[in-house]
Amino acid sequence: MKILVIGASGTVGKGIVENLRPNHEVIRVGRQSGDLQVDLTNDDSIQQLFSRSGNVDAIVAATGSVHFAPLGEMKTDEFAIGLQDKLMGQVRLVMIGKDYLNPGGSFTLTSGILAQHAIRGGVSAMAVNRALEGFVQSAAFELAGLRINAVSPTVLTEALESYGPFFPGFESATAARVALAYRRSIEGIETGQVFRVW
Amino acid sequence: MKILVIGASGTVGKGIVENLRPNHEVIRVGRQSGDLQVDLTNDDSIQQLFSRSGNVDAIVAATGSVHFAPLGEMKTDEFAIGLQDKLMGQVRLVMIGKDYLNPGGSFTLTSGILAQHAIRGGVSAMAVNRALEGFVQSAAFELAGLRINAVSPTVLTEALESYGPFFPGFESATAARVALAYRRSIEGIETGQVFRVW
Repeated sequence: MKILVIGASGTVGKGIVENLRPNHEVIRVGRQSGDLQVDLTNDDSIQQLFSRSGNVDAIVAATGSVHFAPLGEMKTDEFAIGLQDKLMGQVRLVMIGKDYLNPGGSFTLTSGILAQHAIRGGVSAMAVNRALEGFVQSAAFELAGLRINAVSPTVLTEALESYGPFFPGFESATAARVALAYRRSIEGIETGQVFRVW
Repeated sequence: MKILVIGASGTVGKGIVENLRPNHEVIRVGRQSGDLQVDLTNDDSIQQLFSRSGNVDAIVAATGSVHFAPLGEMKTDEFAIGLQDKLMGQVRLVMIGKDYLNPGGSFTLTSGILAQHAIRGGVSAMAVNRALEGFVQSAAFELAGLRINAVSPTVLTEALESYGPFFPGFESATAARVALAYRRSIEGIETGQVFRVW
């Protein structure tokens, strides 16, 4: 398959590329790095990406940022960052990318364990990830002939040094293990699912 | 209790006001109507609302709009309408209103059956309502001494004439029945919950 991996230079993205490369034609996409570039906050930039890549068989998004702060200190604009970036970035990718997916093709988006479990400062993350899982569930009913799933990773083993203190007692997963879930989504038959790696 | 009901002139809002009035001091709030006015898309307008109302014991939001259209016809900006209006409107109300709630006070927000069930054109509604439920769950952990819940109504019996065709086979609920769930949230002890009326 010809597969676009957006966020290919991130920790999860690298794991996905490594997993898929032996069996697929992988196009690495990043904001600045990779084979092609895209800014998911911009419709035109996404259109340009697809005019360069042409039609593909699978689109993977492992990207998106969210603002972390205690509710009492967060400004309303900061709460909205993740809605514009992680949520709408991936929603835009689907809304535009569906016209460039070959029949039977799939989207695999990225949610996270914070959709169901709260950490200090994670109130916006829970809203954003929960919205994303709702989008995947409902979009699956409307994307005739295409599939869409999300992967929800726990904190990454490779990121424990920096993020570990925010996830006390959480079991981590390696990027290689998380990558398996993306592969299940891409090569499997399921749609409208959230594959939890935790 | 002194209770602010935002969206008091709507079908659900009227039911809530009618239910609460015999036992509470109810302040009806609307965009243009009611005892006080507010625009939930604007931080300053929310601040003004509370400078007029003073501290209260409960804040209810039964308001917020979302764009309905098939995914294939929706523009990305249209998808985002509900995030700015129904989701961020209620989030803003909580982020600002928490400083005007008396100890032990509560927020009761409004989600909807479309958080879990898909209808034609409801893809943005599912994302928005799911985000709202995530926000309620995580905010409950951070709002020390305060409570926060959401009510999730099915389609209203009073609205069947206009909305019925979009909810084929869905069982409706009267505004009076839906109002009970708001009362449970306001006078009960639970927090971080979604009270489903369906």
